[in-house]
Order: sequence, then structure tokens, then C-alpha cells
Amino acid sequence: MFKTRKLWSTCLIAATLPCSALALTPRESDATQAAAIHTLPEFVEFLKLPNVMHKSTADMRKNADWVEAAFKRHGFEARQLPDGETPMVFAQAPGASPKRKTVLFYAHMDGQAVFPKDWDQADPFQPVLKQKGIDGKLAPIPIEKITKGGAVDPEWRLFARSAADDKAPIMMLMAAMDALKAQGKTAGINIKIIIDSHEEGGPPTLKDVVQNNLELLKADAVVMLDGPMHPSNKPTLVFGHRGGMGFDLTVFAGNNDAHSGHFGNFLPDPSFALAHLLSTMRDMDGRVLIPGFYDGVDMSPAMKKILAAVPDDEAAIRARIGIARNEKVGDNYQEAMNYPTFNITSMVSGQPGSRRSVIPAFATASVSSRTVPGTPPGRQIALVRKWVEAQGYHLVESEPTDDERGKFPLIAAIRGGGGMPALMTPLDAAVGKWAAAAFADVFGQDPIRIPIMGGGVPTRPLADGLKVPILLIPLVNADNNQHAANENLRLGNYKTGVESLYALFVAKFTN
Amino acid sequence: MFKTRKLWSTCLIAATLPCSALALTPRESDATQAAAIHTLPEFVEFLKLPNVMHKSTADMRKNADWVEAAFKRHGFEARQLPDGETPMVFAQAPGASPKRKTVLFYAHMDGQAVFPKDWDQADPFQPVLKQKGIDGKLAPIPIEKITKGGAVDPEWRLFARSAADDKAPIMMLMAAMDALKAQGKTAGINIKIIIDSHEEGGPPTLKDVVQNNLELLKADAVVMLDGPMHPSNKPTLVFGHRGGMGFDLTVFAGNNDAHSGHFGNFLPDPSFALAHLLSTMRDMDGRVLIPGFYDGVDMSPAMKKILAAVPDDEAAIRARIGIARNEKVGDNYQEAMNYPTFNITSMVSGQPGSRRSVIPAFATASVSSRTVPGTPPGRQIALVRKWVEAQGYHLVESEPTDDERGKFPLIAAIRGGGGMPALMTPLDAAVGKWAAAAFADVFGQDPIRIPIMGGGVPTRPLADGLKVPILLIPLVNADNNQHAANENLRLGNYKTGVESLYALFVAKFTN
Repeated sequence: MFKTRKLWSTCLIAATLPCSALALTPRESDATQAAAIHTLPEFVEFLKLPNVMHKSTADMRKNADWVEAAFKRHGFEARQLPDGETPMVFAQAPGASPKRKTVLFYAHMDGQAVFPKDWDQADPFQPVLKQKGIDGKLAPIPIEKITKGGAVDPEWRLFARSAADDKAPIMMLMAAMDALKAQGKTAGINIKIIIDSHEEGGPPTLKDVVQNNLELLKADAVVMLDGPMHPSNKPTLVFGHRGGMGFDLTVFAGNNDAHSGHFGNFLPDPSFALAHLLSTMRDMDGRVLIPGFYDGVDMSPAMKKILAAVPDDEAAIRARIGIARNEKVGDNYQEAMNYPTFNITSMVSGQPGSRRSVIPAFATASVSSRTVPGTPPGRQIALVRKWVEAQGYHLVESEPTDDERGKFPLIAAIRGGGGMPALMTPLDAAVGKWAAAAFADVFGQDPIRIPIMGGGVPTRPLADGLKVPILLIPLVNADNNQHAANENLRLGNYKTGVESLYALFVAKFTN
Repeated sequence: MFKTRKLWSTCLIAATLPCSALALTPRESDATQAAAIHTLPEFVEFLKLPNVMHKSTADMRKNADWVEAAFKRHGFEARQLPDGETPMVFAQAPGASPKRKTVLFYAHMDGQAVFPKDWDQADPFQPVLKQKGIDGKLAPIPIEKITKGGAVDPEWRLFARSAADDKAPIMMLMAAMDALKAQGKTAGINIKIIIDSHEEGGPPTLKDVVQNNLELLKADAVVMLDGPMHPSNKPTLVFGHRGGMGFDLTVFAGNNDAHSGHFGNFLPDPSFALAHLLSTMRDMDGRVLIPGFYDGVDMSPAMKKILAAVPDDEAAIRARIGIARNEKVGDNYQEAMNYPTFNITSMVSGQPGSRRSVIPAFATASVSSRTVPGTPPGRQIALVRKWVEAQGYHLVESEPTDDERGKFPLIAAIRGGGGMPALMTPLDAAVGKWAAAAFADVFGQDPIRIPIMGGGVPTRPLADGLKVPILLIPLVNADNNQHAANENLRLGNYKTGVESLYALFVAKFTN
């Protein structure tokens, strides 16, 4: 172990933690380091498997086969759970005991769509390793530095789709098991794992898979390994997440794209109409102007205090995402996450790039509205529909008829609107205490507690199906560009992630 | 000629004109009918040649070869004028005389981009013939009805890219020459023709071609055969057209597309910012709110009177384009055409259709602003830039730097802005009198006079190069869907177009 330990020092890896705070024994620390380094070549191979669900179910089956085989290699019992063309994967540590609590860990192997031209590398499925140069900029270094063993700098980053979201935790689970075996230890919990294939795309099928495997998946708590850590990179426990609903808002104008010369100033312009409608919905500070939209948000003094305790560096967040001024929904970043959102994920009219001289027939904004426990999706979409109608629009369910076009000056459609409710587990639930104790033990400090994180994860099928508390434990760096171009994992997070899971595996879970 | 005459009666073809009004002699009328029918098979072949300039220069060369050969078949002298990879075509009637005035006819053989999925036919370059059924709806009938001879109903429509804009006038010129030859007549003018290859796409090259061929193209007037007739389908003379400028307005937000969950309510949303900015620029009636934008528009009592004299059926226009209420720029359709426009030809943020849950990094509106003689493009773009700055935006010329992102809360870019000035030939110019007399002779009524039409045509290279008056004579139906899906030519217009050109060929042109 000596070699490994020298190459990847625990103090370096923890990065933001004082070296002396680490409470794993030296041998344990060696074991987790070794497991992390030894699994990196496999992780690189895993990232080479394209995993865009709605692009290729065949691709996803290859991921499932790989994941099942990998769990088996690392000492788990594993099998695929039928899910149409794209199975999920179930794994469990052998030797479960009724005397121990059972924790079901969740992660997903599918990733968001990729647009290679937006990436700094040719192929988002050919992982690229990068290191900061003396100019402070990340530049590629040979991938062999992690696939052939050798020193690993915690500040190196591995760029690929799903490097962070969410293949990293899958590989970390396997590495943590390697460390457990290397230590000859018995886990303090019964370990079950489910790997989703439909988190980012395709029709969500987790609900059916859970219902069809209730006994298999039965657990005392669920730990979801998804989403980024607090930007401070300090150990983070998240007790809930926003829900969400999405819809397309389309404003109709003429019955066809029409020549902008012969009809300009006569035919209404749908892009401008959409712009006017959108600008009635939100102000320039990001505050939604639709009446009732924020009703039910918990901004009690107690909640405000909890949110204020999270050590956010907002100036750093602004610098990282490249803005001089943030939106003003809530008094700080955590409050912002505890309000429902109203964002446009894409907008289109005409044929961008075509340079056709036309007034398009319609313009569409695809809206993503994240919800919080007090603002259920069904109520929110109803408020939006009512507001659009109050602006004078006649709402249609499909392409307007000639009669409708001749009758209504303003015509719009709102399509979609279904969504997942938000979730929040009480901050004093047993699963939270178990995880906090494990983290305090390994990192020597209490983890950050976040009541609701901004993004959504598919907790509902697990919460409804298994009826147990759910805790979210994010392990990857906050600046991972998840869902976007240049997604990346900071390798220091890979190592602390393995340590965190090892600590959870060995910690005793009591009521 | 009897068969032809029976099959396609002049009265039927003129459609909107009283049968008795036609002043061509019976023999002349037979000749133009025959020429129209005989050239339809060639026209169908012509339309099968893809002609999207910026898609394939090889395609455009095939069009040039076809057009040159066709002019020769129909008795013209013809040759190609070098123009990079895609030559233009020049043709002239043999036997020019210095005693006659010379008229240079202009048309273009290239077409706008096509998006086949928006069309009702599989391929915009496989012409489809349609007839109205008893339900009033157009339905396909065999194309052989016009490619193998036989009766031609003037209400039939031929659907294909460039069926109207602008291959139809090219074929009509050839048919009119056939009629002239069939009558053994001498033209009243020297006929020259130039066929542009870069009107709809690619860098405009007409200026260079004109400058390189000044002697060859020398003429006393230019007649441009482009654009649609007045919606009444009555003979129309157009004395000018709007100019135009185009630019892309981009609003920047974060330095990357970012997760809408983790940053929603904190990271500014560029689509909403763009919507707010756009809604400061134009009201819901289409009136531009940028100060000075309409300065210089001629809405004198005299001009208003001329514009009011154009017999527009605005209710019919609204019904045709499928709107209950038109924009309110100007008191009527013609006034609307005599104001500068401000339309969005396309708008985009994010990756439409991808369903990625991100807040995009930027949003862009591609603006087309048509100008009139009093509102030069250079002044207009300066007003737009000033307005955007007045809304608090820092304007950049390229992707904002990190420094700029950290310093300016609102950042935008305006790219493009070059454009073609508008044109207006005096309503009492000799070329207008010649054409009006020819039309009065053949149609028995004065043509409609339109001072400025809404669309632009590339008159500037001809006006600047040849320094002669330019008259626009549109020949195709107003409802031809030009530039858009389902472009079509009403075959009655094909016939009256041939008659119109025949009348112009034989009419005497004096100062």
C-alpha cells in the first residue's frame, strides 16, 4: 500500500479539509486510496459507453451489461431488472443480516444529450484528463496517467458525459466495496443498490420497476447518490429537492411562415408576441409575476435561519458561472433554491441559421418550472394557464383551426405540464443521523445540511413505493457542468466519494 | 391553334378580368396560349433542378446550364456570365436595332432553402399539380395533365420551390418569345435578359457581374420580374421596394449552459432577458418604440391618397394568412408597406427539442428590418444599437470576456446590420408609361400602381451600375407562399404572365 499512499495523499485529496481531521485509520485510508486509484481505469472504460437514453436503447443495454458485470467483479451479487428494452441494474452485498438495517443506494447510468460542437473535446464519450497549467487554465494531459497507475493529483479533472452525473457514484460504490474487502470488515448495514436507466431521458420507468420488485428493493432508508456537493466541496447531506414541471408555450400568428417583405407590418410577429407574453410573467430580477405562484413557500424565520447557516460564497458562485449580478428571488442562494423557478430551457421560432426572410407562423418557449413542497406542479400549471388567458390569449390544444384563426386575435397553446412533486425528509430522521455520524467520523466535522437542493431527482417512485425516508448524498464537485458541455469530475471528489461511501458502509445505523 | 384555344380559353385564364377587355387580337391570343401550354413541360423539368445557392453551387451550375440551353432553344442568343462557381445567364433577342429602346429584364433562378417536412409533398423539387376539389381543398392531380398537353384550368396550381419565385418569369420570357415568333412580329424594344444566381442566398454578386458587363447589359430601363402581383391579381406596376438590413441580437447570461435546478432563481435567464428587451422595442400592434425609427417616412397627404387608391381587400388578406387582426403600422396594408419593418425571422436559445434541463448561456433573435427611402439602413441600425445601450446593456463585438462578465450585469451583441437601401422610381418615368400603355392595351384597363412594395429585390447593383430607371413587374399570384413551404404558381398567372411579357415585347417605348 505504501506506493499508493505516497502517490495520492489523503491530505491532498480532501483538499478543503484539514489533514488532521481525517478519522479513518491509516490502514482504512490506504485501502480507500488504493481502491480509488485501482478503479480509475475501469471508470474511464465506463465513460466510453454512450448513454443517451432517448438516442439509443442499444447503447443503454451495453451500459446495463457493463454495470452488472462490474458489480460482480467487485464482489456484489448483481442482476438486471427488466425495464422494457433498457434494464436497470440491481446489486447487493452478500451476507445480508436481519440484525442490520438495510440501505438502498440509488444512482443512474444514463446521461443527458450531448452536442459535441459545444465541447472542448471532439467526443464527449472519449474521456479527456486535464490539469491546470501555470496560466491557471485546464489543458489535456495523457489519459494514461490514470489508466496505467501512477500519481493522481486531486485537482485533475476527467471530462466526459456522465463523468459526474451520474456514473461517478456507481464506480465509487464498487471502489468502497473493494476497500471494505481489503480491510476484511463487515458492513454496518445491508447494502442494496439500484442503478436507473431512465433518469435523464425517455419515459421514467422507475415507478414500475420499484412496484415490480418491492420485496427485492425493501429497505429502511434510501440514499440517492446524485447531484453536486455544496460548492465549498464540504461533506453535504441534502434532505429534499425541488420537484418540477415542464411545458411548451407556443404563440401562433399566421397560418404559414410568410414573406417578411410582403407581410411585415401587417402580419403579427409571433416572436414579439411571445416576448411580450413572457415579459408579463417574470421581471428582470427573475421574480415571477403570476399571482399566487409563490404561495406556500416556506420562508419562516426558522427556515430562513437554517438556509442562512449554509456557508455559500455567492461572489464565488457568480464568478464561476460568469455573471456580475444574480437574480433576486430570495435573499440568498439557499433561499433562491427554496422558491419555485420559472426558466426557459429552450426557445425557438423560424429556422435558426437558415436566414430565411420570413415571419414565422409560431414561436415556442420550453419552460422548466421547478417546484418546492408548498407549490405543487398541478397548481402551478393551472396558474400559468390562467395568466396566459388573462393576457387575452385563446388557448388551444392543437394547431388552431381556420375558424379559430379568424376569430381570436391572440392564440396560444400550453402543452405538457405534468411533473414530479418536490420532496423533503425531516431534518431529524434516523437516516440523517446515521449519515451525519459517519461523515463526522471520517471528516471530523459535521456535514452541511441542505433542506432542499435546487435540482430534482426521481425520489417519488422510491418514496411512494418503498415508503421510507430518503436522503440525498451528493459526492461530485459543484462545478461539474452537469447536463451541459464539458461535464467533468474533479478526481479529488472521486477519492473523497469513495471514502464517504466506505464510511457509510461501516457506520452502524440505529433508530 | 383551335385545339389550344378551346382547351385554355382566354376568358377563363384572365379570371379576374372581363373577357371582352382583352385587346390582343384573336391570333395573338392564340399564340400566347399555345406558347404557354407548350412550355409547361419544360417548366416542370426546370423546377426539378434543386436551386438552393448556399446548399450546392453544383446544383446552381446545372440550373445555369439548363437556362442557357433553354433560351437558345427559344430563339435567344444566350451565354453564361462568370460569377465564381455559379454563373449568371445573359440572353438577348437577335436583331437589336439602335432605333429601338433597350429593356433589360431581370429574374433569378436560385430559390430559398427548403424544409421538406413542412411541405405537403415529399420533395419540393418534384413538382405537384393540384386542383380544388368539391370540398374547396387543393388535392394532387397527375402532373401529366400539363406535361403531355391537354386542357389547362387556370385555377390549377403547380407546387414546387421556385414555381413562383422566381423561375416562372424566366419560363414566361421564353414563351413570350415563342409567341412573338409565331406571329412573325418584330419586337418594339431590344430585349436583354439577365438571370441572377445569388438573389436568395450566398453572397450577392450581381454588383460585380454588372460592373464586369456594363456594355453588354447597357439598357434604357430595367424591368425586374420578381415578387407577387397585387392580391386582386390585377396587372400591377411597382415603382419601388423596401430595402433591408438584418442583424442578430444576442443576450448573454452565464458562461455556459447551466443546470436549471441548481441555478434556477440565481443565474439570469437569457431568454427572459431577451424577451424583456424585445418587448421594449415594439408594441403589440407592431409599432416600433425606438425613438426616430419612423423619421423620414413619407406619409404626405398625396402619398396617402395614392396608397389608398390601391384596391386591397384586407379582410381577404387576413383570411388568407390566417389572422383575426393585423398589425397597426399605417392605416391600411399599403401604408404598412411604406413603413420600415422590424421582424424576427428566427429566434433561438438552448437546444430546441432536446429537453435538456438547462438555463442556456445566451439567446438570439435574428431581426430583419425592411427600410423605405426615408429610413436608410445605416441610420436604423445605429438607432437600434443606441436603444439597446439605453436599456442598460453593454454591447460586445464577440463572446464576452470573463472580465466583461464580471463587470456588466447586462451584456448583448448586435452582429450584422449591413443592408440594401430602398428604391423608388418616379411614378411618371418613361418606363412606367411604356409598361402602363402595354398593359392597358392587352388588359383594357390601367394597371395598379404601387409606389413601394413590401419585399426587397436586388435593384441596387443594377441601379448603381446601369444608372437607368427600374420598374418592377410582378407576374405571379400573391398567395404563392414564396420563401416558405408549399410555394406554388397559379397556372392562370402563368398564362397572363406570358401575355403581359408579349405585350411588353411588342409595345413601342418612347421618351
